[in-house]
Amino acid sequence: MSNDALLARLRDELGKDAVLTDADVTASYSRDMMPLAPAGSPLAVVLPADVAGVQATVRACAEAGVPIVPRGAGSGLSGAANAIDGCVVLALTKLNQIVEVDPANRLAVVQPGVVNLDLRDAVEKHGLFYPPDPSSYDWCTIGGNLSTNAGGLCCVKYGVTTDSVLGLEVVLADGSLLRTGRRTVKGVAGYDLARLFIGSEGTLGVITQATVALRPLPQAPATLVAGFPSTEAAGEAVARVVREGLVPSLMEIMDATSIKASEAYLKTDIGAGSGCQALLLCQSDSGGEVARRELAVLEQICLDCGSDMTYATDDLAEGNMLLQARRVVLTALELYGTWLTDDVCVPRTRIAELIAGCHRISEEVGLRIAVVGHAGDGNMHPTIVYDPTSPEESARAHRAFDDILEVGMTLGGTVTGEHGIGKIKQDWLEREIGPVGMRVHRQIKAALDPDNLFNPGSMFAPG
Amino acid sequence: MSNDALLARLRDELGKDAVLTDADVTASYSRDMMPLAPAGSPLAVVLPADVAGVQATVRACAEAGVPIVPRGAGSGLSGAANAIDGCVVLALTKLNQIVEVDPANRLAVVQPGVVNLDLRDAVEKHGLFYPPDPSSYDWCTIGGNLSTNAGGLCCVKYGVTTDSVLGLEVVLADGSLLRTGRRTVKGVAGYDLARLFIGSEGTLGVITQATVALRPLPQAPATLVAGFPSTEAAGEAVARVVREGLVPSLMEIMDATSIKASEAYLKTDIGAGSGCQALLLCQSDSGGEVARRELAVLEQICLDCGSDMTYATDDLAEGNMLLQARRVVLTALELYGTWLTDDVCVPRTRIAELIAGCHRISEEVGLRIAVVGHAGDGNMHPTIVYDPTSPEESARAHRAFDDILEVGMTLGGTVTGEHGIGKIKQDWLEREIGPVGMRVHRQIKAALDPDNLFNPGSMFAPG
Repeated sequence: MSNDALLARLRDELGKDAVLTDADVTASYSRDMMPLAPAGSPLAVVLPADVAGVQATVRACAEAGVPIVPRGAGSGLSGAANAIDGCVVLALTKLNQIVEVDPANRLAVVQPGVVNLDLRDAVEKHGLFYPPDPSSYDWCTIGGNLSTNAGGLCCVKYGVTTDSVLGLEVVLADGSLLRTGRRTVKGVAGYDLARLFIGSEGTLGVITQATVALRPLPQAPATLVAGFPSTEAAGEAVARVVREGLVPSLMEIMDATSIKASEAYLKTDIGAGSGCQALLLCQSDSGGEVARRELAVLEQICLDCGSDMTYATDDLAEGNMLLQARRVVLTALELYGTWLTDDVCVPRTRIAELIAGCHRISEEVGLRIAVVGHAGDGNMHPTIVYDPTSPEESARAHRAFDDILEVGMTLGGTVTGEHGIGKIKQDWLEREIGPVGMRVHRQIKAALDPDNLFNPGSMFAPG
Repeated sequence: MSNDALLARLRDELGKDAVLTDADVTASYSRDMMPLAPAGSPLAVVLPADVAGVQATVRACAEAGVPIVPRGAGSGLSGAANAIDGCVVLALTKLNQIVEVDPANRLAVVQPGVVNLDLRDAVEKHGLFYPPDPSSYDWCTIGGNLSTNAGGLCCVKYGVTTDSVLGLEVVLADGSLLRTGRRTVKGVAGYDLARLFIGSEGTLGVITQATVALRPLPQAPATLVAGFPSTEAAGEAVARVVREGLVPSLMEIMDATSIKASEAYLKTDIGAGSGCQALLLCQSDSGGEVARRELAVLEQICLDCGSDMTYATDDLAEGNMLLQARRVVLTALELYGTWLTDDVCVPRTRIAELIAGCHRISEEVGLRIAVVGHAGDGNMHPTIVYDPTSPEESARAHRAFDDILEVGMTLGGTVTGEHGIGKIKQDWLEREIGPVGMRVHRQIKAALDPDNLFNPGSMFAPG
């Protein structure tokens, strides 16, 4: 089938408005938020309105031999949803129905185009909670969250996306529809296929529906902020929190560069002036007296580890204001240039060493690197500031990006805690999982997508 | 390679004592605890002492074309570890080292032959908790728990085995060693292979090591027992507990037949005499005042739903005594005959309907059926009492076993919540997951084990 014939068939089957080919328009669907990743020019962007439209698209592209790159909102940070030349970008944003909320069984059934925040809001009305909360929760979609197994700030207590999924509906490479998983809390009938597709970055199929488990809505969080004279002291506090068996509902860390950026952006004093080298932000959502006790223990650990400034509040609005300092870091860094954020997860005992490594790399490459991260699970996001119009500076940024991964691996960590491999860490995947792991990946890919239809440029090169 | 040559090679590579061929001895390794499942006569039982021994066994059997059935302690309830004629039973019980406990990062590294209780005890010394607790926890092994994705009584709060695993080491069909997963809390580098092997019932590889996540040790549980005049009332109480957002650390249900059996066995009164038709046993491990408050809310829900007997205690020994009634049910049923326990998981709103269905089936087949189960996650174990020496009665027992699954599926449930498909529910797997699901299973099996070396009689027939 020629490209023209493919487009004609897609327009015929899905409707004219569902197939976009204007180059200016398709370009806006050609990449996510990761500047380092390459992006090609799609043949077309297809926006099916239902699962039948997804199946029709998959069947037509399979016949035409045109690869498919599935995507959601494009909030990704690894280029996994970036177009390759001549592909069909399959945007799932119009499959955006919350099909069902079943409060009696604490579950919801959702389409992939539903925005994370919309799901959160919909279930909150029933006193329920959908935990996964990537930083982009107000615009990223559930489909993207599933495909990257997205994390967020809640993971320290509630896990990542895969921990909230009961079942999936997936369109396979031949257009058939796989229903896998269940609506019950437990179930071991057959292989755990749902979790194979989750985090597979659109390389094995197109997720068209998910059944997700919900939790009781936790209490409004109480918040503690603690400033430290060194990152080592803050890292020791994190290690102590883990060792003493505490499970805060949020525990974030900011280094001095992040603190200064936030101060400049928010035009407020959060400690940089008084020599604060690291901030820990902790929350407890256990409610009332229990939360106050948890925060008191956290506060004492921080003080014991050398914190010279602590402040706790159970006022929700004040807590949100304190968290603002953390939430604005990336935006604040734009005061200095363009940001490039990395993603590495290390054992929780090694956080201070990772930050020290980032500061060393910052000096070596002569670029500002701000370290923020989910301290409670060791998932750090060192963020490099650079000028993308300078090829030389871009090269230094890229080098820093890789050097950070090297440090993370040396510390016993992984090269991606939550953003994924995508189009930027394929060499690193091979280094992390080794030749046997790569072979198994290729075997599974070949078994489920023998013609390499789905997202062929992402995660790894098929064998 | 002839069978004799295979045995000679195995003896040469693993040592004489590691290869058992005496028929009386091998017979004792030929089945698990599920009486319905067929079991063949193994060529040999091989007991490697280390991962190299597992690799040598796999390579030798692959060359000889002799299938391998991996097994742990044999506590399984689906025949998944049952021998097939002429196979090598690969018993992992000598790989029984707790390789590492890392309290600072709340993880442990264990070999598959470690007994669940030994791991629990080893980490408890560090104030840590390995949650998965199948009923056979004092003799089942971690390898079996992983291969069946075992559940237990803790699941309502802490999930099943897969929820506690960070990484695996697996010997593949060509003898190579796959290391997958990580030591960090989060990680999305590549496909979630660990969770593909977990619950695959030994059909994809031999698990030789696992890195498991540990939790802080919870408080000693407080216990509530509530008697109900009908199973409907007890089922409504469970539904209310879910709907109102409570998460007890244990919530078990017993029907009248179970209660009577326990009473007869324990020689004590737990309510049957006063017309109690169902018991709920609940625990909270939140500690102190919080636990007392949780139990008070649970108690009020039970009373509101018609409970005519409630009793709460925060005394650990007394709580354990109350739980005894639940724990002894299977043993107690042996007063009446041999038991055959089923495993079905339904939405938590449908528990009373499942129990009613079991009672109807009991009358139809003329056999005693006692229903006990993990009410908090809808995972019920209706247990049929019969005389296995009577072929006619065995046939009725088998019919009841299937009819219970039919009822479970009709209620929106799954045919196995935690025991697995094994050699007894293969037709049911096909019914539950359908032809597309079966095809994907066969594609994955063919990709990873093309010669059908591993446990070929279990879960499904390869394509």
